[in-house]
Amino acid sequence: MRSDRLGETLLPKRLALPVFASDALSSVAYAPDEIFLTLGLAGGALALTHSWEIALVVVLVMAVVIMSYRQNVRAYPSGGGDYEVASVNLGPKAGLGVASALLVDYVLTVAVSVSAGVQNAAAAFGFVRGHEAIVAVGIIAALTAMNLRGVRESGTAFAVPTYLFMVTVLGMALIGVYRKLTGTLPAAESAGLELLPEPGYEAVTGIALGFLFLRAFSSGCAALTGVEAISNGVPAFRKPKGHNAATTLLLMGTISVTMLLSMVALATWTGIKYADDPAVQLARDGVPVGEDYVQDTVMGQVAKSVFSEFHVGVVLVSIVTGLILVLAANTAFNGFPVLGSILARDGFLPRQLHTRGDRLAFSNGIVILAGAAAFLVIVYDAKVTSLIQLYIVGVFVSFTLSQIGMVRHWTRHLRLERDPVARTRMLRSRVINGIGAAMSGTVLLVVLATKFIHGAGFAIAAMAVLFVVMMRIRRHYDHVRDELAVSEGDTKHQLLPSRVHAIVLVAKIHKPTLRALAYARATRPSILEALTVDVDPDETKALQAEWDRRDIPVPLKALDSPFREITRPVVDYVKSIRSGNPRDLVVVYIPQYVVGHWWEQVLHNQSALRLRTRLLFTPGVMVSSVPWQLASSEGMEERMDGPVAGDVRRGEG
Amino acid sequence: MRSDRLGETLLPKRLALPVFASDALSSVAYAPDEIFLTLGLAGGALALTHSWEIALVVVLVMAVVIMSYRQNVRAYPSGGGDYEVASVNLGPKAGLGVASALLVDYVLTVAVSVSAGVQNAAAAFGFVRGHEAIVAVGIIAALTAMNLRGVRESGTAFAVPTYLFMVTVLGMALIGVYRKLTGTLPAAESAGLELLPEPGYEAVTGIALGFLFLRAFSSGCAALTGVEAISNGVPAFRKPKGHNAATTLLLMGTISVTMLLSMVALATWTGIKYADDPAVQLARDGVPVGEDYVQDTVMGQVAKSVFSEFHVGVVLVSIVTGLILVLAANTAFNGFPVLGSILARDGFLPRQLHTRGDRLAFSNGIVILAGAAAFLVIVYDAKVTSLIQLYIVGVFVSFTLSQIGMVRHWTRHLRLERDPVARTRMLRSRVINGIGAAMSGTVLLVVLATKFIHGAGFAIAAMAVLFVVMMRIRRHYDHVRDELAVSEGDTKHQLLPSRVHAIVLVAKIHKPTLRALAYARATRPSILEALTVDVDPDETKALQAEWDRRDIPVPLKALDSPFREITRPVVDYVKSIRSGNPRDLVVVYIPQYVVGHWWEQVLHNQSALRLRTRLLFTPGVMVSSVPWQLASSEGMEERMDGPVAGDVRRGEG
Repeated sequence: MRSDRLGETLLPKRLALPVFASDALSSVAYAPDEIFLTLGLAGGALALTHSWEIALVVVLVMAVVIMSYRQNVRAYPSGGGDYEVASVNLGPKAGLGVASALLVDYVLTVAVSVSAGVQNAAAAFGFVRGHEAIVAVGIIAALTAMNLRGVRESGTAFAVPTYLFMVTVLGMALIGVYRKLTGTLPAAESAGLELLPEPGYEAVTGIALGFLFLRAFSSGCAALTGVEAISNGVPAFRKPKGHNAATTLLLMGTISVTMLLSMVALATWTGIKYADDPAVQLARDGVPVGEDYVQDTVMGQVAKSVFSEFHVGVVLVSIVTGLILVLAANTAFNGFPVLGSILARDGFLPRQLHTRGDRLAFSNGIVILAGAAAFLVIVYDAKVTSLIQLYIVGVFVSFTLSQIGMVRHWTRHLRLERDPVARTRMLRSRVINGIGAAMSGTVLLVVLATKFIHGAGFAIAAMAVLFVVMMRIRRHYDHVRDELAVSEGDTKHQLLPSRVHAIVLVAKIHKPTLRALAYARATRPSILEALTVDVDPDETKALQAEWDRRDIPVPLKALDSPFREITRPVVDYVKSIRSGNPRDLVVVYIPQYVVGHWWEQVLHNQSALRLRTRLLFTPGVMVSSVPWQLASSEGMEERMDGPVAGDVRRGEG
Repeated sequence: MRSDRLGETLLPKRLALPVFASDALSSVAYAPDEIFLTLGLAGGALALTHSWEIALVVVLVMAVVIMSYRQNVRAYPSGGGDYEVASVNLGPKAGLGVASALLVDYVLTVAVSVSAGVQNAAAAFGFVRGHEAIVAVGIIAALTAMNLRGVRESGTAFAVPTYLFMVTVLGMALIGVYRKLTGTLPAAESAGLELLPEPGYEAVTGIALGFLFLRAFSSGCAALTGVEAISNGVPAFRKPKGHNAATTLLLMGTISVTMLLSMVALATWTGIKYADDPAVQLARDGVPVGEDYVQDTVMGQVAKSVFSEFHVGVVLVSIVTGLILVLAANTAFNGFPVLGSILARDGFLPRQLHTRGDRLAFSNGIVILAGAAAFLVIVYDAKVTSLIQLYIVGVFVSFTLSQIGMVRHWTRHLRLERDPVARTRMLRSRVINGIGAAMSGTVLLVVLATKFIHGAGFAIAAMAVLFVVMMRIRRHYDHVRDELAVSEGDTKHQLLPSRVHAIVLVAKIHKPTLRALAYARATRPSILEALTVDVDPDETKALQAEWDRRDIPVPLKALDSPFREITRPVVDYVKSIRSGNPRDLVVVYIPQYVVGHWWEQVLHNQSALRLRTRLLFTPGVMVSSVPWQLASSEGMEERMDGPVAGDVRRGEG
C-alpha cells in the first residue's frame, strides 16, 4: 500500500463509527450493572428507586464530554488526541501525564472488556461459570496471537458485529418499551427475591448515603470510556476530517446515551435485583439463596424478560454482546502500540518503537499489553466489579488535562484572532471546553475520593511509575544527543584513517570463509591477513596444510590460545596492531551464517557474535559481517514482512 | 595464567584428594540413613540386625568399582572420563548415553547434596525445620551466584573443609569404637522407641523380604556416587598423572569405606531407630510419637551418643557435614559445564560451549543446572529419601558402559601386544574391569528393578530426552558441514566481486555518522553514497541543509518511506543495486553505539540491529558496524573478563 493510494482506504462515517465506537458502546454491557450493585449494597429498594437518577447524571456528563471532544477533533485533526492537546497547551509533562494515564487504561480496557465478555458468555453458556479467569486469559491469548500475526483489519470486520450489537440492543429496548406500555413486560426472575443490605450498610443515611451515590455514579462513568478513541483516529476519516469526526462523535454519543438509559429503565421496570455478593445478599422468603445461585448480568436478565417466550433472542443478545466486548478489547491492542509509537517519536520510549513496519516493536507492545491485562484478570479473578475500581481514573485524568489544554488553546488563539465571527465561535468553544474541564475534573475528584482505597490507588501508582520511567528515558536521550553533537566547523571527525588493516577470521576452509576472503580482498586494504585461533594444535596444523594446498593468496596467521579462548587472543592482537599504528583502521571480517530457525541461531554464530560485541569496545576497529545464507534461511524474507495491528485506525489500511 | 606456567598450578595428591573427593565422601552423610530407613519399613529389628550386612555388600561393590577405575585413569589420563572410554571403545552412541546419564546425575548431585545438607543443618539449627525446601533453594541460589561471578577456586578452599570433615568423622568413629570397647557408649535417644513396620510391611517374608534387602542395597549404593570424579580430573594431577590419580583413588576409597562402615556400626551399637515415616512408625510405649517428633539424621544421632557430654562435638559434626555437602554440590557446578564443553567439542551441544573464557556459555550451563536442581528440590520438598530414588541410575549406567568399554579396550590392545609382561598386566586389568562391568551391571539392574516406579523411571526418561536432543544437534551440524564444504580444486568461491558499492546509513549528523563516513571513505570503494530514509520530510530537509553547509564530500540520497519504515526502503534499494550489477559487492556501513548498560542497549541500536539482520538475508551484501563508544561503555572491557568455574579441576587454576 503506497502513500499515493492512501486516500482510497480512508473511512466513510458509516465505517468509522463501528471502527471507533465499539469500546464506548460496549460499556453498556457492564456500566448499568455497576450502578445497580453499588446502590444495592444498601438494599434492593434504593437500587430500584435511584439507579435511573444516577444514570441521568452519567448521561449528562457524557453529553458534556462529547460536546467538548467535538471541539478537540476540529482543532487537532492530526490524531495526536489528548496527548497532543495536553503537550502543546500545557507542556510536555502534562502530555506525559496523559500518556501514562492512557497506557494504564489500555491495559484496563482489555482486562475489563474481556472479563465482562466472559461473565456475559456465562449467562448463555453455563460451563464457563467457575472458570471465568482462565477463559478470559484464553481470549486475551487469542487476541494477542491474532494481533501478533498482523491480521489486516478491515472496516467491515468491525461494522458487522457493531451494527448487529446496536440493532439487537436498540431492538430489545424498543420491544421492552412496547411491552411495558402494553403491560405485557414480565418481571425479572430475580424480582421475586429480596435484596438485603451488605453487613455494615443496613442503615445508610446522610453523608454515608451521599458517598454511596457518588460511588455508584463513579462506577457508572465506566460508560464514558472509549469516548476519546475518535480523537486519536481523525486521520482515518474522509475529508473534511474534523467535521466528519465530530459528526461521528455526536452519533456515537446519541446511541450510547439511548442504550444506557433504556437498559437502566428496563432493569428498573422488570424489578431486577442485582447484588455485589448474591449468595449472601439475595434471599428467598428470608433464606439466603447461597453459593448455588447464578446471577446473570443486568443485560442478560433484561433480555430474559423482554424475550420471555423467545429464547433465541436471549442467546443473540449474549453473543453480540460478547462479540462487541472482544472488539472493544481489540481496540486497545491497536491503540497501545500506536500511542507507544508517538511517545517514541518524542523520545519518551525506545526510539525504534516510532518507525512502523517494525513488527518486532509492535509485537513487544502487544505482548506487554496482553501480559499486564492477563495479570490483572488473574489477580482479580475476572471480576468486573473489582477491575472497574482501577478503571476510569486514567480516562478522567486524560479528559481533564485535555479539556484544560483546550481552554488554553482557545485563549491563545483569541489573542491573535481579530475576525469577530471567528472570535464568537472560539469563545463559544472555550465555554464548552471550560464546562468539559470543570465537569471532568469534578468527576475525577469523585472517582479518586470514592475509589482510591478500592483500587484506583494502584492505577495512580502505575501511572506514576510509567511517568518517571518515560521521563528518565527522555533525559537519557537528551544526554546522549549532547554527547554526540558535533559543533559547527569542527572537522576533526572527518579525518581519514591513514591505512586500512584487514583481518579475516578463519575457523575452517568452507564456502563462508572463502566468501569473506573474497569480499575482504575486493575492498583492497593496505594490509590483509587471515587469522585463526589455535584452540586445537592438530586442527590448526591441518588448516594450515589445506590453506597451502589450496593456494589461497592471503597469509594465514595462527594465534596461541592456551585456554581454548577465541575472543581474548583476537582482541589482544587487534589492540597490538592499533597500539603500534594508532591512526590505522582495523577492519575485522567475520563470516556469519544466516539461518532460518531460532534454534539454529543457538547452534551457530554465538562465538562470532560475542567476538563482534567485544571488538566493538575497541576504538579504531570496524567489524564486517560477511553473511552466508544457509539453505534453511530461504523464504525467511517473506515471513518477516506483513501488516501491522492498528493499520485501519491510522488510515493506513 | 599462561600455558607455560600451567605446571605450577597442577595439584599434588594432598590437594587433589580434597578437590575430587568431597562428592564421594559426603555421601556418608546420607547413605547409611537410606539403608536404615528402607530396612526399617519392615520394623526396627530388621534394620538393627541386617544394616551392617547391606553396608558390607555396598563396600564390596565400592572396592570393585574403585579397583576398576584405577585401570581407567591409567589407560585414559586425558580427563575424558567415562564419556571418552565409552565413545572410543563402544562408539559415539554409547558415549552419548554416558553423557546423558552424567548430565542428569549432576543435577541430582546438587539436589541430593543440598537437601542432605539442609536436613543435617536442621539437627543443629532448629529454625530450619519446616522450611527445608526454601533454605535448599537459597543455598542453590548462593552457589549459582558464586559460580556465575567466577570465584577462582583454590585447592586450599577445598582442602580445609574436606580434611576437617575426615578428621571429625574418623575421630568420632575412633572415640565411638573406644567407648563401645570400654562399655561407655550410651544408647541413642531413639533406641528406647519402638520402630513399627509401615502398613503393608507387617509380615514381610520370602521374595518380598529379598526385594526389600535389594532396595536397601540400591539406596545404600548412593555411597558410590562421585567415585568417577577423579577419572575426569586426571589432567589436574602432577606427573606421573595416571599413577598419582590411581593412588588418590585408592586413598579416597579406603577413607570412604572406613567412614561408611564405622557409621553403620556405631548406629547399630547405639540402637538407633530411624524411620521413613517417623510420626507413624516410631512409638513410645505403644503410642505413636506423632508429627511433633524430630528425627535427626543417623550421623546426628550417632554424634549425640558418641559426644554425649560434649555438645560442641555434635555441633562441629553438623557444621563440617553441612560444609562438605555444599562442597559436593559445588563440584557439580564445575563438572556440568566441563562435560558440556566436551560434548560441544564433539558437536552434541552448541559449539560455542567448547571454547573457554566464554563466560556466557558457562553461565548458561550453571543457570540450567541450578534451575533443574531447584525444581527437583521444590517438587520433592528437599526430601533426600525421595530424591535418592532418581539418583544412582545415572552413575551406574555410566559405570557399566565405561567398564564394558574398558574390557573392549584391553581386548583390542591385547591383539597387538606381544610383550608377555605387558600382556599379563593387560589380562589382569581386563579381569578387574570385567568384574567391575559385571558388578556395576548387576547393581544397575537391581537399581532399575527396585526403584523404577519410585522415581528412577523419571531419571531414565530425562536421559532419553537429552540423548535424542544431542543426537539431533549433531545431525544438524553434520548437515551444515556438508552444505558448506568446498570440493578440492573448486575455485569459484574465490572469485572477487567486480566493484564495491559502499552505502553509509545516516540518520543525523553527529560523531558516529562522521566516523562511519570517514571509515567508509578510507576503504576507497568504487562508489560511495550516504543514505537516509525520509521518515519525516521536515527532518530530512534539515539534514540535507546541514549536509551541504558542512560540505561533507559524499553525496546524500534520501529514500521515500510512506509508512515510516526504515528497513524495507533500504533493503529494496540495496536489492535494486544488486539486480542491476549482480557481480558488485554492496557494503552497508551502519553506525552503532557501544553502551555500558543493558537498558541502554534497549534504547539504542535496535533499528540498526534489525536492519543488519534483514540485510544479511540478501546475497552479495556485507554489513559493517562502525562502533561509537559512548562514555557509559568505559570500563566494560574489564568487567567482561574473569575466571571461570571449574578451573582448578581442569588443571587451569
